[in-house]
Amino acid sequence: MPDGYNGKILRVDLSRGAISIDEPDEDFYRCYVGGRGFVSYFLLRELGGGEDALGPGNKLIFATGALTGVPVAGSGRNSVGAKSPLTNGYGDAEVGGYWGAELKHAGYDAIIIEGKSENPVYLWIEDGKVEIKDARHLWGKTTAECEKLIQKELGDRGVRVAQIGVAGENQVRYACVINDLSHAAGRTGMGAVMGSKKLKAIAVRGHQKVALSDDRAINSLARRIRDNLKTHRSAVAMSKNGTAGVLMPLNTAGGLPTRNFQQGVFEGAEKISAEALHDENVMVGKRGCYACSIRCKPEVAVGEPYNVDSTYGGPEYETLGALGSNCGIDSLGAIVKGNALCNAYGLDTISTGVSIAFAMECFEQGILTEKDTGGLKLNFGNAEVMVKLVEMIASKEGIGKVLADGVARAAAVFGNGAENFAIQVKGQEVPMHEPRYKQGMGVGYTISPTGADHCHNIHDSEYTRRIPGGLRALGIFQPLPTQELSAAKVRLLVYGSLWQHVLNCLVFCQFVPLSPAQITDLVRGITGWNTTVWELMKVGERCITMARAFDIREGMTKRDDCLPRRFFSPFTSGPLEGVSIDEGELKQAIDTYYAMVGWDKVSGAPTLAKLQELGIEWVAEA
Amino acid sequence: MPDGYNGKILRVDLSRGAISIDEPDEDFYRCYVGGRGFVSYFLLRELGGGEDALGPGNKLIFATGALTGVPVAGSGRNSVGAKSPLTNGYGDAEVGGYWGAELKHAGYDAIIIEGKSENPVYLWIEDGKVEIKDARHLWGKTTAECEKLIQKELGDRGVRVAQIGVAGENQVRYACVINDLSHAAGRTGMGAVMGSKKLKAIAVRGHQKVALSDDRAINSLARRIRDNLKTHRSAVAMSKNGTAGVLMPLNTAGGLPTRNFQQGVFEGAEKISAEALHDENVMVGKRGCYACSIRCKPEVAVGEPYNVDSTYGGPEYETLGALGSNCGIDSLGAIVKGNALCNAYGLDTISTGVSIAFAMECFEQGILTEKDTGGLKLNFGNAEVMVKLVEMIASKEGIGKVLADGVARAAAVFGNGAENFAIQVKGQEVPMHEPRYKQGMGVGYTISPTGADHCHNIHDSEYTRRIPGGLRALGIFQPLPTQELSAAKVRLLVYGSLWQHVLNCLVFCQFVPLSPAQITDLVRGITGWNTTVWELMKVGERCITMARAFDIREGMTKRDDCLPRRFFSPFTSGPLEGVSIDEGELKQAIDTYYAMVGWDKVSGAPTLAKLQELGIEWVAEA
Repeated sequence: MPDGYNGKILRVDLSRGAISIDEPDEDFYRCYVGGRGFVSYFLLRELGGGEDALGPGNKLIFATGALTGVPVAGSGRNSVGAKSPLTNGYGDAEVGGYWGAELKHAGYDAIIIEGKSENPVYLWIEDGKVEIKDARHLWGKTTAECEKLIQKELGDRGVRVAQIGVAGENQVRYACVINDLSHAAGRTGMGAVMGSKKLKAIAVRGHQKVALSDDRAINSLARRIRDNLKTHRSAVAMSKNGTAGVLMPLNTAGGLPTRNFQQGVFEGAEKISAEALHDENVMVGKRGCYACSIRCKPEVAVGEPYNVDSTYGGPEYETLGALGSNCGIDSLGAIVKGNALCNAYGLDTISTGVSIAFAMECFEQGILTEKDTGGLKLNFGNAEVMVKLVEMIASKEGIGKVLADGVARAAAVFGNGAENFAIQVKGQEVPMHEPRYKQGMGVGYTISPTGADHCHNIHDSEYTRRIPGGLRALGIFQPLPTQELSAAKVRLLVYGSLWQHVLNCLVFCQFVPLSPAQITDLVRGITGWNTTVWELMKVGERCITMARAFDIREGMTKRDDCLPRRFFSPFTSGPLEGVSIDEGELKQAIDTYYAMVGWDKVSGAPTLAKLQELGIEWVAEA
Repeated sequence: MPDGYNGKILRVDLSRGAISIDEPDEDFYRCYVGGRGFVSYFLLRELGGGEDALGPGNKLIFATGALTGVPVAGSGRNSVGAKSPLTNGYGDAEVGGYWGAELKHAGYDAIIIEGKSENPVYLWIEDGKVEIKDARHLWGKTTAECEKLIQKELGDRGVRVAQIGVAGENQVRYACVINDLSHAAGRTGMGAVMGSKKLKAIAVRGHQKVALSDDRAINSLARRIRDNLKTHRSAVAMSKNGTAGVLMPLNTAGGLPTRNFQQGVFEGAEKISAEALHDENVMVGKRGCYACSIRCKPEVAVGEPYNVDSTYGGPEYETLGALGSNCGIDSLGAIVKGNALCNAYGLDTISTGVSIAFAMECFEQGILTEKDTGGLKLNFGNAEVMVKLVEMIASKEGIGKVLADGVARAAAVFGNGAENFAIQVKGQEVPMHEPRYKQGMGVGYTISPTGADHCHNIHDSEYTRRIPGGLRALGIFQPLPTQELSAAKVRLLVYGSLWQHVLNCLVFCQFVPLSPAQITDLVRGITGWNTTVWELMKVGERCITMARAFDIREGMTKRDDCLPRRFFSPFTSGPLEGVSIDEGELKQAIDTYYAMVGWDKVSGAPTLAKLQELGIEWVAEA
């Protein structure tokens, strides 16, 4: 790569049917790297603020990163970003599989979708060539049907498809973008944005290898990483159980979200655990992502009464929690069915499950009655009704129409104190990590630009195991109590979140156990940059800062940095009985976070000095 | 090194004649690493604030770092620190040669000198054994005499000696600590502190190799570094000319301090340049430091009328400027003589030269008369008088007694507007880097914990050449105009200064051209830590923050962060005619610096959140 490291960004204006290509210079690539770096850059630069997230003024960005598509485990990912219709703030989600690598191999680092098509269309990208194609015949199809039709009409079963289902078409505010049928860019409603643009899918085929600055170094690193994954404890565990492996330990600790976060222990946990996936012979295979030998995605199939084959993969931990324990449901079959439907219709399983759990609690509290639900008994534990509600949300039918807007908006519709049961931050439903259990995660929920988010957050003391050698490589030496909101915990959040953002910009899997030094070696070998962990952490900090600036421009303030009041009340049973988040401590932790990352203590906006220090003064004008 | 990386710190109480050894744990080493990290830690922890810098309550600390004494070029250094009698704030200075490596080989990472001896003593450290020895017979001796006597009485010419001369004995406030006769821990008056404790010298002999976590990695790195130094442009230039090589380029640019910083061009520059050292056959050899092949220290000798042999090495750029152009003196012989006297008596050549230049300007302005000077004509350019004044300052004779307290105190004694000619910051004389020329350096002078300091500072656009690959490895891509005080310049200062502090903590030479990644590889190979540039930069930030906190405890405030007014007036001739520092821009730059590093904008103290982020909350209590 003698001319330096940069590449092409595809720009598609669906209103005009126009296609163009940006070729930013190397400094742009080195400053923003990819993923959230790209998304936040383009959203800040090219939106003006106040756009309707579901209008033609929003832009939908698919972004890879510096590590995407190279032959190293963890590199098969991409981000999808836009202004979020769920939070009306910064939105993005990351996803694994093969699509991101394929896009890179087709010659593009990112796609910026602008405007809105009159009729349904899909994009077809093949080794640099780009075509906008009619998708009227695909509209209304499940993701499996759609993928098959596209591959057939393009005459290539190797075509990779990222797409929306009917949930996205119907602009369910937490509709996701699905690729390879079982991988979801789940959060913040990117599928709804895609639906609003009448873009059904992006089909990609690429045959170009990613150019490497130092082939030998990368190949040698890749080999060592591959060998290491065979025996690395967490890689082996992920290979066996996927993320589902954490369900039982969380339940044992008392931190498994249960019945809309009312409890932390679920009596039916074992039945929906990774162990159950094995014991019940539900698991029929495993899927993985591009270049990765871990293959952490169980493929499942269940018989009567749910009859699900493995087309749509299987449930992650988040799904087992959201559709399972958090709805009080111990039927593995029902969860598998719900998961398959979410993938078929393109729904985020977390927001879907939390919305259903919210409705169930409202029902049990008498805020909703059978009159509101069309006769459905929305009690916790009612598996059949859960499955039914997934369908109703996707199709916006009956009570599903209200729930399709997320719990914050639904609570406003229901009234009568329903907001007490809306477990969300900034409009996004809380994922399956109990903030009373993982209290650092709780602080992270409040300050995340996308609302309740666990992917750029810390798992508290567990987190020290996620970066090999612990966090020592970043200068943190002591593990901290999980139920603690000290300044040291905030520091752990700041450093940990910066590192998560590094992985995000590289669009690299956080489950592949590489150290900061190894990641940096990969970036050097790929790009030829003499980069350091310091520089990469600053890239991460740029992302956090830009995404925050986007939210501020959309009118968010410090007041939006808060948790649902439920978490200020203690658990009344289980190992964590009596444990809650102290509201004063949380406020203090948020203030400390602001001060550590350079946000104004009153407005919550990044200070000018912080923008200047990161070399992004332009954000102040944007 | 199976038990982790840590070592021994020697503690000597001269009041009680007591010797003890601290063995801090590995986390301490990893947090503070060495150099300024150690010095600022112990000074903050063990002093209470308000001590007389020249009283027994002060502590004098000799500190090595993680890289000291390993067989890699640049590792022969140590720091000397204490509360400064010049600034009454944080003081330390770094020095090369062999003494630091020898101390490490004798088994100690640092020495903390406490209290005060009744009679002159010296310390004798041999492979772990420590003895306090009578030094009454050494008191009053030149450094060369003293070193010879010590080596003779210990019966080993390999003994390395760090010592004070009569300037230190007389507590000249800018007396230095000299080791190996020609290497000076020059700044902030550490020699005066040593003199106040009646400690004449520390003699060291060690035969223990530094234990390496990964011998092979270090040896292979050392070999590659050695090979690279043979051809590396800046290493070759340093090998030829030493620091003296910058004199002519600075003069050509209009930034050579001349006649007490009145001008930036000296008509006699060529006569005192590196080229003159070669042309005049003044250079008779070269010296270097432990393990270093660059050997950047010219050894000089001159004949009549100054008759100087090469015992004391030769002048650095700072000395050529301070005793030369800044005094309007173009006699290389006089400068060589002045340099030899400074090393014989243990005087910092920078503060000495600036004090003499100050007196000269006062004399020319009529503030001093021959009555005050005992008949000496203190005109700029009077080489004989310059040499005479060096002697008078060291012995505190006549006008020398006033000048021995530094220009700030002398100006208060002289009155009549003499303070306008006192070119100092926080009481320390400005080194030979014109802040109107290097404007980022000017900001650095104001915020440095030791007052006017160039060693932890930036050389503006030049600086980008000092870290191989430019500053790109730290995320800064664009060189900036040298005469500019933008936020981008402040960012360069912040990042650059952090990196300088990394080198300081490792106590590694900033002239050995290693990249951040190479330095990190060395630290990993030596310590076994899985460290990163991020972690090391945080160590550097800890130092900056702790040293600042020390100054705040001593009562300094934002008001002390300023420059002499001279620099707000433009040059009236030369290439920089019309150029000055804009006072408003400087104030803005200081505010920006504060905000970037987390100092309170009113008090200038590090914020609690910054202390917490760095894991040093204890500083708030100290």
